[in-house]
Parts: sequence; structure tokens; C-alpha cells
Amino acid sequence: MSKQVYKWIGTRPDRPDGADKVTGRARFGADFNMPGQLVGKVLRSPHAHAHIKSIDTSAAEALPGVKAVVTSKDFPDQPNLIVPAGEMQVNLRDITRNVMAREKVLYESHPVAAVAATTDAIANAALALIKVEYEVLPHVIDVAEAMKDGAPILHDHLITEGVTPAPTKASNIAKRIDNAKGDIEAGFKQAEIVIERDYTTQPVHQGYIEPHATLASAAEDGQVQIWSTTQGHFQVRGFCSRLLNIETSQIRVTPTEIGGGFGGKTVVYLEPVAVRLSQKSGKPVKMVMSRDEVFRASGPAPGGTVRVKIGAKRDGTIVAAECTVALQAGAFPGSPVGPACWTSFACYDIPNIKVVGYDVVSNRPKVAAYRAPGAPISAWGVESTLDILAQELRMDPIDLRLKNAAAAKKGTKTSYGPTFDVIGFVETLEAAKNSEHYRSKPKPGMARGVAAGFWFNVGADSSAAAHVAEDGTVTIISGNPDIGGSRASLALMAAEELGIDYDKVRPVIADTSSIGFNFVTGGSRVTFATGLAVVNSVRDMIRELKIRAAAKTWGVDPEGVIWENGAAKPAGSNVGEFEPLSLAQPAATAGKTGGPINGHNQLNAQGAGPGFGVHIVDLSVDRDTGITHIGRYTAVQDVGTAIHPSYVEGQMQGGAVQGIGWALNEEYIYSAKGKIDNAGFLDYRMPVASDLPMIETIVVEVPNPHHPYGVRGVGEVPIVPPLATVGNAIARAIGVRMTDLPMSPPRLSAALDAATPSMAAE
Amino acid sequence: MSKQVYKWIGTRPDRPDGADKVTGRARFGADFNMPGQLVGKVLRSPHAHAHIKSIDTSAAEALPGVKAVVTSKDFPDQPNLIVPAGEMQVNLRDITRNVMAREKVLYESHPVAAVAATTDAIANAALALIKVEYEVLPHVIDVAEAMKDGAPILHDHLITEGVTPAPTKASNIAKRIDNAKGDIEAGFKQAEIVIERDYTTQPVHQGYIEPHATLASAAEDGQVQIWSTTQGHFQVRGFCSRLLNIETSQIRVTPTEIGGGFGGKTVVYLEPVAVRLSQKSGKPVKMVMSRDEVFRASGPAPGGTVRVKIGAKRDGTIVAAECTVALQAGAFPGSPVGPACWTSFACYDIPNIKVVGYDVVSNRPKVAAYRAPGAPISAWGVESTLDILAQELRMDPIDLRLKNAAAAKKGTKTSYGPTFDVIGFVETLEAAKNSEHYRSKPKPGMARGVAAGFWFNVGADSSAAAHVAEDGTVTIISGNPDIGGSRASLALMAAEELGIDYDKVRPVIADTSSIGFNFVTGGSRVTFATGLAVVNSVRDMIRELKIRAAAKTWGVDPEGVIWENGAAKPAGSNVGEFEPLSLAQPAATAGKTGGPINGHNQLNAQGAGPGFGVHIVDLSVDRDTGITHIGRYTAVQDVGTAIHPSYVEGQMQGGAVQGIGWALNEEYIYSAKGKIDNAGFLDYRMPVASDLPMIETIVVEVPNPHHPYGVRGVGEVPIVPPLATVGNAIARAIGVRMTDLPMSPPRLSAALDAATPSMAAE
Repeated sequence: MSKQVYKWIGTRPDRPDGADKVTGRARFGADFNMPGQLVGKVLRSPHAHAHIKSIDTSAAEALPGVKAVVTSKDFPDQPNLIVPAGEMQVNLRDITRNVMAREKVLYESHPVAAVAATTDAIANAALALIKVEYEVLPHVIDVAEAMKDGAPILHDHLITEGVTPAPTKASNIAKRIDNAKGDIEAGFKQAEIVIERDYTTQPVHQGYIEPHATLASAAEDGQVQIWSTTQGHFQVRGFCSRLLNIETSQIRVTPTEIGGGFGGKTVVYLEPVAVRLSQKSGKPVKMVMSRDEVFRASGPAPGGTVRVKIGAKRDGTIVAAECTVALQAGAFPGSPVGPACWTSFACYDIPNIKVVGYDVVSNRPKVAAYRAPGAPISAWGVESTLDILAQELRMDPIDLRLKNAAAAKKGTKTSYGPTFDVIGFVETLEAAKNSEHYRSKPKPGMARGVAAGFWFNVGADSSAAAHVAEDGTVTIISGNPDIGGSRASLALMAAEELGIDYDKVRPVIADTSSIGFNFVTGGSRVTFATGLAVVNSVRDMIRELKIRAAAKTWGVDPEGVIWENGAAKPAGSNVGEFEPLSLAQPAATAGKTGGPINGHNQLNAQGAGPGFGVHIVDLSVDRDTGITHIGRYTAVQDVGTAIHPSYVEGQMQGGAVQGIGWALNEEYIYSAKGKIDNAGFLDYRMPVASDLPMIETIVVEVPNPHHPYGVRGVGEVPIVPPLATVGNAIARAIGVRMTDLPMSPPRLSAALDAATPSMAAE
Repeated sequence: MSKQVYKWIGTRPDRPDGADKVTGRARFGADFNMPGQLVGKVLRSPHAHAHIKSIDTSAAEALPGVKAVVTSKDFPDQPNLIVPAGEMQVNLRDITRNVMAREKVLYESHPVAAVAATTDAIANAALALIKVEYEVLPHVIDVAEAMKDGAPILHDHLITEGVTPAPTKASNIAKRIDNAKGDIEAGFKQAEIVIERDYTTQPVHQGYIEPHATLASAAEDGQVQIWSTTQGHFQVRGFCSRLLNIETSQIRVTPTEIGGGFGGKTVVYLEPVAVRLSQKSGKPVKMVMSRDEVFRASGPAPGGTVRVKIGAKRDGTIVAAECTVALQAGAFPGSPVGPACWTSFACYDIPNIKVVGYDVVSNRPKVAAYRAPGAPISAWGVESTLDILAQELRMDPIDLRLKNAAAAKKGTKTSYGPTFDVIGFVETLEAAKNSEHYRSKPKPGMARGVAAGFWFNVGADSSAAAHVAEDGTVTIISGNPDIGGSRASLALMAAEELGIDYDKVRPVIADTSSIGFNFVTGGSRVTFATGLAVVNSVRDMIRELKIRAAAKTWGVDPEGVIWENGAAKPAGSNVGEFEPLSLAQPAATAGKTGGPINGHNQLNAQGAGPGFGVHIVDLSVDRDTGITHIGRYTAVQDVGTAIHPSYVEGQMQGGAVQGIGWALNEEYIYSAKGKIDNAGFLDYRMPVASDLPMIETIVVEVPNPHHPYGVRGVGEVPIVPPLATVGNAIARAIGVRMTDLPMSPPRLSAALDAATPSMAAE
């Protein structure tokens, strides 16, 4: 496909929200206030696992300044049923218990009560006055431990799904999933070399800068207003509607600016509690989590165990691949074990695949989505194992991947169903191989690692509208919070369609009552799906503009009119001689030619284009301290089309950095009592700017044929390769293959110490 | 037309904003605040007419806490050109000078400067530090005086329009309009009786409870946010765009709840000033008028002079009618003299009509719209003269009007153009005549008056949308501030269309960036025009619901599906056997059947149905004090269809009460220096509840064939008849025909004193 020439697509203007964000005008979750608002605070469990025998809130309620106290009694119980809330599939029984513990607390800091009071100090005092009687139970933190017979059982009703015959005994394994293609046994029989390894990863937090925050106001007539820092205000509406039995259209949720989410703000923690406190107190209630609460009680990504077995011919042709993933779901079922399984071998055209996944509960906070949920974990295992295979075969690791790369022309059918159409994995591998980085030698002391990654990207529901104002400037309205620069990408597409300047297009994110339904900002769907809705809305507007120009101004048939460079023009000389009518002209006379000129669209976007990335790192390991120093890092990725290249590169850089943190340092440290010992950014070590070089990016563009501008989605893929990219380089740097994350200084030191006698073993 | 049977139309549920308004939750103009906001205040002219020789703001600027000072220099000058701003036709030169005086002040309290400061006290101190040097000029307040040769001229460039040949000299008469039908001279020759009288009315204020208020925040990148109590946030956007040269889509205006407008909140006073102060200070600026400022510097309705001459046959057939109206425009041209002329004889089928109007400037605040702008003034003259005619002919005043009533079956062509189609004046007169009130005798001491009134009602531009949420509840979005219960009327029509309960429909008023363009809430257009857009939006949604039910659920052709009682049903047994699908079912599965289910519409609504009213009063006059006591008052009106009868009745009652105030007491008292002496509700005497009986209403319903539910519009008509209704009753009560308003106790006493020797003369 030859590259299109665009006027706006592919340029790098400032983002529409940029000035507000650098001047401090932008209003984030904690910046919203209402007159008379109360402070809402949550009382949290000190135990990892315990029965709640009783809760006495009477002393708290009697404290002057306390206006409402809620416990699980204030929330309707819910059926053990998976239903959509804002089109997210949720188990109502579980989600209401995660918002407010009912019979049991299942993790340290699980909410057990909440108060609304006139001041922060009174709210804290009230929390101290709530008496909760617990019966402490044995707890289990680790996934492998939780799967063992005899492990403390979190949910007495939990019978493993997906196993035949159905077990009769409760277990911490919520679900087993199987995913296969070809004949795995026959496949391995063809193999001339088989590599099999076990890996583990640790849960990691999304680490958004802005803690969860909400302001809720419930009125006497049942109307509810919510301001929330969220990736999906329609989902906040849906969750609150379900959990509080409020009709959906009675709830109006306005998204604030969002200081990062990465998947972690697609669920609700505070909102239903704030609404309930507001209903009880009759006042607006504001709730803001501390960083400590964020770490202890908001969803991290799961940790897990991965066993990978790959069989290949001596020429590098992979003939069979098997992967078993067990993911920690936290206190309630629902880890992303599905995507972990489905993505595991998606990069490769392998005839025989078997993937098994387990969703496992343990006494940790319920996991939430985090960029490409599940995929980095299976990729850690698969891409490490491939690197071992390349080493064994003495093949270039990119060549090994090229030999086995999924490609449309091979008719690659995935293990999870679809057959790929236009994808750019081969192009991405080639771009990596041909990059200046890969063609150069690592600097002295540095070793190089390479790994790949895959993400589906998703479509789903979006609604949009476009309105032209009297002076010909345009507003485009969508309903997805802007996390990564989507206002800019939507405005660029609208400007391209309309043929007007980018700064004449104002993108606006509307609240749940002002625009039709939108699925979350996540899964790398907004520039694709909402972008499609915006493009369609603008086309709908152009259709009307042609009518106004043609029928109402020129007296010709609208089919004889084209829209070009921001103006209506006769399609040919047979239509008549007319001066082009620029957008401002029909806009100024809209009232006289039939009324406002608006465009609309809503869709369930089909055809999200899969994304592939290849990362390259040069690094060194300080053998004395175990500290890894990243010397150079390049992320290569097929993004379809980079609508706004700066924000595409930003996504690739951000994803890579988060993956590097996951690889090297991030983990939760639990005490023997099941309490988190490192709930803060000083002790939970995320990479900061000084830890890393500038991440280099190579944007590959293989346009997605299912989007008018070829968009695939960008944000998920770049967190998938880094874990193995870093691990593969470390293996080559120190000669020791690390299989357990994080590869932190103490672990690397220990591994080096253990390996010293046999450094050449791998 | 036989009366339709509806489920929701015509019922009286609580308004959606009702609970918020009675509990105090509703947020009006002065209830919006932003962190760091400044207080904005206006320095106003102490003179009625003066050159501004200089303004020295240096001392004010130097005062600690003062963050910005603006004068006319801070506003771009504008051409003397009438252009649309939010589709309202405005003279840019004049409007910028009304917002901030430039060369001259033209009325007492005309703004000359404004400050933004950290506190109210500092802002006041800053105003006191601004030195303005004036050269005081002679002024003129009264319309008749202003029209005289030698009157002080307000605008040296103002040449009377509509006069041939064009005058060469500047004048206070901005415009003359002529409006004619038939041959007026020939008409009067046929007359067997001719009545001719001169009348005057005084300017009256709209008297909304809530003073003007705004909060504006201008960001560094040029984006502007405004909260405003207004009848048209799209017009606030348009005015600010024009006056400050800001692109329209860079401005986002959110309407607050509105504490009355009655036409007076269709213009801007504070908003451009607040924006400019915010731009200069870099902070949000809040401005709230005091009641004193509202009276002195916001638009009242005009006062004027009316000469009426009516010629009739002895049987009461009117053969010729002439009316000359001169209306006070205030400091800048633009009185509603057009509507005053066009409505003057619109109630009647008269073969020969001549109407002349003059738009006259004087040193008063520029007038603004007030319910049926202009119409009450000409009606005061016409309906008083008709009453004299009825007395002379010894005819029942309703019979006289019935004899001459405009009617579609007569093919009544108006003097201003259109020929009436379906109108209900005859039905309204008959309803009045047959009313219990009219059939009863006035109580002893009471005299009875009757008069009629007309208003066009208007259509214009509206945009709307309808969205169904996952649980089948519905949001309808429109862009007109709700003054008189339009949320309820829109929701009722949506519920009727959808066949679902009213409380499942949530009407939302969106800001300028979230819905397409909407013309002002005014002219009695919202339930008609925006109602039409809502009905069309809902029908668009139902069209989609049928597709989801049919094609996506039943696998049949959507044309084989009907929507009935809130559910999709097969149109006939040939389509197939299917259980009805209620709204909630396709709503719950929307994502799987094609995405969100939204409906949209935008239009320039045509076919607004003219409205007619007839009012009846029984009153007595205390001959000692001149106080008029209203004993009984009935408003009869054709409203087309009363969507929500309570709010229809409320409009009729409110209009009648405002008209009674206009008739009896309201006026501005000017000092010799041209300053208002009664700028407060204690001295400007509006009727209060204790002054009046409950206003009775008789709702006549002759459906407008151009609206799916027959809506005509209600709010304007009821202020038209009361002036003459009361005057006609007073004439019959005291035997003296009052021709000058208000008929206040001092004036009635004086008239009674003057008339005592000849009480039977009239």
C-alpha cells in the first residue's frame, strides 16, 4: 500500500489540552468542589483475610460533624452473575464486595466502612471510632501457593470453571481456559530441539501519577452527579447504576482530566461509596485516595507463573509451542488470563499450539487492567524461551522471529480464532533489523537483547458528533477521556476530512448526558474507534454542507458537488460555474438554509488492526551491585498510521519505560501477615527519567485497511516486549538466564553469586 | 380536528428540575465559582449624556489586589453593521458601545470601565480611583421629546432609515416602517363611525428575580469558558465571539439555571467584560449585577406613543384601521417597533390597514426583548379603541371582536404578509364568551373589561439528540435554557413518542460545545421548535430500534416492524410471530447489534402557529385613593396543544400578572438630570401575590397542524391583552377613558378629579 499524502495526518501540532496542562488550569479528579461538600474517607481492613463478625458505627455516627457512615449494609446485595456495566463484563456479587467488604475482608486495606464528615480531621476521627470485630483467617498471597491443595480458600462458593468433570470442592482456581491449534503432540514429535522453562512475574502497579478521586452529589429526586478521574465515565455510570440500583439516565458523570490510568481507571472504587454517602448525608461528598490507598487497594496488574515449551527444527522453524499461564486475579476472579493465553504465540505462524490458563484468586487487591492486560506476562515466557532457542541454534534472534513471523500472506491463523489480514509484523522485524541501532555494535560492556510483542487492539462502541459554528469553526464531540493525546488525533482527522486548519477544530469530551454511549478509553481503541465515529460524523456534516451549498445556494443537485480543501465545489463543468463555497459561508447562513449543520455517528467499530512491536536494548549489569544500566533502547512498532507522531512515539516510549520497570524493579513486598510493606513510590521502585536514556522509536506504518486513515492503535503493544527484551540482554550480559521478575539488584546479585561456578552453562 | 388521545401529553407530572429548585440545589448565575476567581465590577456613568474626554485608570491599576482594568480601549472597535451573533441581528458598533461606552455615555449607568480585583472591597475601591472626565451634554428621555426638531441628538451619524428621500440631518428617529393592506383612504370613506385616540405607555422592566451574573475564564491558549444566566448560551457565545474577535468554537458557554428572563436575558452586558478582564488578569472573573444596576443599565421594554384610528360600519364591521407607533429604543436603535406594527391589527380581518412605526433613541438604557416584544403597546391602543367603539355602538365587546375576528375560513391575510391557516381566535373569543366568568355578572362595585392579543410565535434553529442507556432509560439533549418548564414539555413529548414512562426520560440542557446550535429560549419557540427537534430525534432513535429488533434480533425487514407502547412489534402476522421487544432489550444489547442507539435532529422549524388570547377582568377603583382592585381575572388562550397544562397555565398567569403591572403601576421615574429615581423593587412597583386574585385560565386547544403534537407556543400572548383589558374595565368602572399608562393611583386620582364635572362624557 503506497503511503498517502495528507495535510494534517502525520503532523505534530500542540495538543488542544496542552496549554491548560502546562499552566495548571486543567482540572483533575481532586480539583472539583461543590459548596457544602463533605470529606469522604474509607476505613480499610488491617487483615489480609478475615471474617467480619460485626461493625459498630454508632460512635462514629455520634461524632459531631459526621454526616453519614456506610458499610456493606448500605449497598444492595447482588447476584453472583456476570453482567455488563457500561458494557464491561462484571460479576455483580464480587464487584459490590470489592467496593465494600461484606462477609469477609479478602485483602489488607479492603474497604469495610466509609464516612462523610465536614472536615478531614473529623472524618479521620470517625474512622477511628468505628469498631470492627474480625475473625482472622489464614491467608495466601502467592499464585502458586494459592493453587495448592490445602491453601486457604477465599471463596467457599468458588468452583473452578472450564474443567470437566466439574470439581465438587471450592478452590482458588476460578477458571481454566484452553486454547489450541493443530496437534501439539504430533508437533513436538517433529521437533529437533525443544526448550522448556518456567517463569514468574510479580504484580506491578499501573503507577498513574494521579490517585483516584471523585466528587458525587445525589439530589432528593434521585438524580446523581459524579465527577471522576476515569478512563470511562460511561462505565462509572454503568457501575454505579448496577451497584446502587439507580436508573442509568439518572446519573450524570463528568470525566475530569486524568493524570494517567493505563487500565487502572476502568473500574470503580470510590464512586459508588461517594454516591451512597451523598444520598445518606444529602450533601456532595468528595473522596480522594492517598498514594498508600492506591497501592494497597487499587488494582495492580497480576503476577503469575508461565511455563513455556517450544519445539523447533534446526533451521529455526518452530513446529510446536505450549504455554501454561496462571495469573493472580487478586481477591476476586477476573485476571486477564484470556488475553495472556491468546497473545502468547500470536506473533508467530506455528502449526501446533497449546495454551492453558488459570485464573487464581489470592489475598491481594483485585487486579485491574494494565496496558495490554496479560500479554507482557506470557510474552516474558515466550520471548525469553525464543531467545534461548536462538542462542542454542546460534541464530540471530530477529532472523529466528522473521522465519516464524505471522503474516497475512502466510495465511496465519491465530490460536484464538481469527486469521490475520493486513498486519505489519514482518515489516516491524525488518525495520528493527535494518535500524541503525541493530546494525551498530553494542558499546563495550553492553549486551543486546531483542524481543517482540503483540496486541489485538480493539474497536467497540463509540458515539461522536460534529458541529459547525457560525464562523465556520468546528466542534467535535466525543465521549472518551483523553489520556494519550486523543483530542489531538481526533482533531487532526477532522481537520483532514474537512480540509480546514487543525486549530479551527475544537475537540470536546462530553459528559454521559451530552453524548451517546462510549466504551472506555483503553485497549488502544480511541483513535481507531472513536476516530472512526468522528470521521463519519464529519462526513455526515460534509454531506449536509454539500446540500446547503448545492440545493440551497447554487440550485444544483447535491450529487454534483464535491468537498475539497475546505470548500464545496462543482463536481465538474457540467454542474455549472460556481465559486467554491468555503465552510464559513454555509455556516454563516445555516439558519436560512435549513437550520444548524451538525454531523453524527455511532458505531460498534469493527476491524481493529493488530499491532506488533520489536524492542532492542543495549545494557550492562554491574556485577558488584546487580544494578542494570540501560544504555540504549529502541522501540519499533507498526502503528498502522501515526496520526500524531509525537503522541505515538510518546505511547511507545511510555510503554517501554513501564515495561522496563516491570522487568527490573517493580514488585510488591508482602509481610508475613499479608500486608504490603512498600506502598509508596520511594519503596515501590518505578523508573524515573534519570534511570533511562531517551527511548528511541521507529514508527512502522502498515495501514489498517479497516480504518479510513489506517489507524491500528498504539498504546498497548509497547509494554509487551520490554520484559523479555531486558531479560534477553541480561542473559547475554551476564551469561545467566533470569526467569523470575523483577531482575532487581538483589536478585541479579544472588543469581550472579549462584552462577559464578558455571557462568557458561546457559 | 378531533382531539387526540395521548398517554403523556396533557398530563401534569413534576418538572425534572423541580426538586433541585425547591431544595436549593439548582445553581443559578451567581452560584458558580472557580478557584482563584476575581471579583469584576463596572464603573458606570453618573450622567445621562456626556462626552468622555478622558479616563485615567492608573490609580486603580496601582491598587494592590487589582488585577485588571478595562475601558473601551480594551475592546476592538466594530463596524456600523448589522450582523448575526448567534443568529440575532445586532449592530456591532452599537453593541460594543452598549457593553462599554466609547466616545460618549448615552444613559445614566452606561458602563465606562471595569475592574477585576481579589475582593469586593478592593474592586469597589478601584472603581472609586478611576478618574473619568466628562463633558456633560443635554439629554432627552421621552420618546415624543426625542422626535422633536432641536432635541439633543444621541448619534451624529444616525440618519432615519425608511424615509424617502433620505434625510440629510442626523436625528433620533432611527427608522420608520410602513405596513399597509388595502386602501386606507377608501376604507375610512366607507366608515359610518370613526374613533381616533392617542395613547402612551411607559418603559417597564422585565423584573426577573435573578440579576445578571457570569463567570468567565480565559486560558492562555485562547480558550474561553463562560457560565452565564441567559436565555441563549449560543447567543452569549456569538456575541462574545463577535465583540472580542474570538473564534466561536474557542468559546464554551454553559447556561446556569435561570431565575427569569422574559426576553431580558437574550443580550449580553457582563459576559464580554468578564472575558476581557479574565484575559487581562489570567484569572477567572465573576461578575454579578446588583438590582440597582439591573434597573439602571439592563434593557427594559420600551415605552411609546400610539395613535389609533378605527373606522366601522354601524353593525360593527371594521372597514379601516390605522395605527402609528413610536417606540423608545433607548440609547441605541433597535426597539421592537416592527412586531408592534405587525401585531397591531393581526387579530382582525380588516380590509384596509395602515401602520406606521418609528424607532426612536433617547438617553435611556437600550431596550431588550420583553414577552411579545412591542405587541402589548400597540394592543393597548388598538384594544382600547375597539372598546370605545363597542361602547359607542352599544355592542358586547366580545361580539364586536367576533364579528371582525381573523379566521382561516375567512382567508384572513395579515397586514405584514402571511395569510392565516389554522388559528383559534374565534374559538378563543367563544370560549371567553361562554366562560362562567363572562356569563356571570360582575360583583357589585366591579366593572368588567375585555381585550384580545396576538403573537406570531416563532420557530428558528434547534438541535437535539436522544440517547438510550443500557437499561432502557433515555436522555434527551437540547440546548435551550429552561425558563418556563420546557424540560418537562420536551420529556413529555419524548415519553409519548417512545411509549415509555415520563420518569424514564431525562432531559438535559447541554452547553454550546456539547450540542449543535440553538436559537434563544424566547418568542415562544422552545416547546414548538426544540420540541420538534426532540420528537424527530426520538423518531430517529425509534427507526434504529426497529432495525435492531428486526434485522439484528428477529432477522426480518425493519419495514415489517412497528413501534408501539414502548416496544418493537411485528407489523403483521405475515412478518412472523415474535414477542414484543421493549426498549430495554435492544438497549442492553446495543454493543452487539451495531453500537450505541442514538437519535439526532437539527432543523430550522417552520410553521410556528400564531396564538391568540382574550382576557377578562372584573375590577373596582377606589375613588378616594385611585387604587385599582382586581376582583377576578381570566385569561383565555389558544395554545395549540397544552403539552404540560400546569406550565401552560403558569405562563398564562405570569403573562397576565406582568401585563397588569404594566397597566397599573410600573414606570421609571426620571430626575431632571436624566437619572432613575426608583431603581429598586420598593419603588418600582410590580404586582405581588397579595395584590391579585388567582388568575383563572381557560386553555383553548386548536392544534397547530405544523407540529406533531399541535404545539403553538404559549408564553408571549398572555402579556398582550392585560393593558387594555384593565384600561377597558377602568373606563367602565369610573367612566373615564385612561389613555396613558400606568393607570397608577396618582394618575387615576388626577383623572377622576379632572373628570368629576363631566363623568358621563365618555
